[in-house]
Amino acid sequence: MTAFEFLDYAGTVVFAISGALAAINKRFDVFGILILAAVTAIGGGTLRDVLIGRTPVGWMQNLEYIYIIFATTIVTILFGKHFIHLRKTLFLFDSIGLALFTITGVELGLQFGLHPVVCVLLGTMSAAFGGVIRDILSNEIPLIFQKEIYASISIIGGVLFLLFLKFEIPIQFNYLFTSGITILLRILVVKYKWELPRVG
Amino acid sequence: MTAFEFLDYAGTVVFAISGALAAINKRFDVFGILILAAVTAIGGGTLRDVLIGRTPVGWMQNLEYIYIIFATTIVTILFGKHFIHLRKTLFLFDSIGLALFTITGVELGLQFGLHPVVCVLLGTMSAAFGGVIRDILSNEIPLIFQKEIYASISIIGGVLFLLFLKFEIPIQFNYLFTSGITILLRILVVKYKWELPRVG
Amino acid sequence: MTAFEFLDYAGTVVFAISGALAAINKRFDVFGILILAAVTAIGGGTLRDVLIGRTPVGWMQNLEYIYIIFATTIVTILFGKHFIHLRKTLFLFDSIGLALFTITGVELGLQFGLHPVVCVLLGTMSAAFGGVIRDILSNEIPLIFQKEIYASISIIGGVLFLLFLKFEIPIQFNYLFTSGITILLRILVVKYKWELPRVG
Repeated sequence: MTAFEFLDYAGTVVFAISGALAAINKRFDVFGILILAAVTAIGGGTLRDVLIGRTPVGWMQNLEYIYIIFATTIVTILFGKHFIHLRKTLFLFDSIGLALFTITGVELGLQFGLHPVVCVLLGTMSAAFGGVIRDILSNEIPLIFQKEIYASISIIGGVLFLLFLKFEIPIQFNYLFTSGITILLRILVVKYKWELPRVG
Repeated sequence: MTAFEFLDYAGTVVFAISGALAAINKRFDVFGILILAAVTAIGGGTLRDVLIGRTPVGWMQNLEYIYIIFATTIVTILFGKHFIHLRKTLFLFDSIGLALFTITGVELGLQFGLHPVVCVLLGTMSAAFGGVIRDILSNEIPLIFQKEIYASISIIGGVLFLLFLKFEIPIQFNYLFTSGITILLRILVVKYKWELPRVG
Repeated sequence: MTAFEFLDYAGTVVFAISGALAAINKRFDVFGILILAAVTAIGGGTLRDVLIGRTPVGWMQNLEYIYIIFATTIVTILFGKHFIHLRKTLFLFDSIGLALFTITGVELGLQFGLHPVVCVLLGTMSAAFGGVIRDILSNEIPLIFQKEIYASISIIGGVLFLLFLKFEIPIQFNYLFTSGITILLRILVVKYKWELPRVG
């Protein structure tokens, strides 16, 4: 397993935890918890795959994702109430997931020969849309539309990745710089409660 | 028309009725009733087709489904209030639909060369996701996440079907056994009010 | 740019405005406004493309749509409160969008060799589904299920287009007649408050 895969799986774990916790909070049954964990973790990537025509979609071809989500959900059900103490660790992993899913989304767009603007949008979709589906299925207005500059950070990350690529920075450094800056930005945004402006 | 097709259409009818009744209940207009009937009946299969790349999706290639949904919706609008007396018949058909859509979903996954675990998930998606879309469009938390072990029964049905296939039980018997057990399980679950555990 | 393209872009503009205004009304942040504008404008066409297997979906291949949505959203954020005075103009554009998206959806279905009934449904999906996604993402019951005969007008438009095609009316006149009648119908429906019947 490469470092890249490790981080990709780590992102899946944290997104699954976030979905499972939301389901527990809504008093879903065990099956509902599993589904909400899954759509949060792989929903963004699935939408991305469907829109570019990469079918059967990714998690159908690489079963690791299903196993990881399954195991993560079981652990969350058993020990979820202790996760409050892991809040900072989870938040870090969530930021890693945001950064990684952004990058993998952009790269997939490039592989499919799509315009850079579309690639950036695909990265953001991968990183942010799982959470949108989670909120819709729990009958909430998607959090992303109201709080935190979550998706905007993903856009910045995607643009950075493409810029570094254009300036022919070696890909390993690109991974490192892009995800490092994205993670840092996310931490700063939450720490200093930066918000996008509203209207009216 | 084979016995298999008959049951598949019967499943479509009952799912369409369930969608139409939900829409009438929410005071949707005639068009809204038709749409909700349609997404409940073919929403699960459509999602399945899109995720595996079977496009144009099934109901675009075989118009019977559209005609069945249309006719069913008209009948439901005209005679829906009498359906309360048919409650047990409808429930039986709904269980038949659950069993049949599970099997057709699993078979399609096998045709596309997907892993057995993915096939079972495709069966469950076909059987249960129409109801999820119905609930989202009526602005309800999906019932499936909270009550009845609906999807779990579909998973058991899918696993049974694959097991019987592995043990080379002739396909006709497999259809019969799998759907028989799935239907029976569903009746027992509702009769004895079995529930999946919640957490916290 | 042909007259056809001009009207197609005009439809995109008005649908984007309708999404942006809904988001402002719900107090979404700037990013949320942009997303809601986008899904309203291109959501219907995207669903249509995915269901028929036209991937990567349309807006990924022709970036004009993204630029138009972006510019429209900025203008709506800055001057949205003055749009109340443009109500009639917007309503006219919205009706043009309804007519145009219906026709382009039907034509695409024909290109993919689908049955006329399916083509009409594709037209309606293109014209009406963006608004459905907008309402789901704002946690509202889709307006289309409750008020105005929006989708029904699109169905009539689609049927007309196919009839004119069958009678070999030259395509330019077909565009003109179909969209003219569709737009007129929409104006009449709203003016005289025609409604589809409800049940129960």
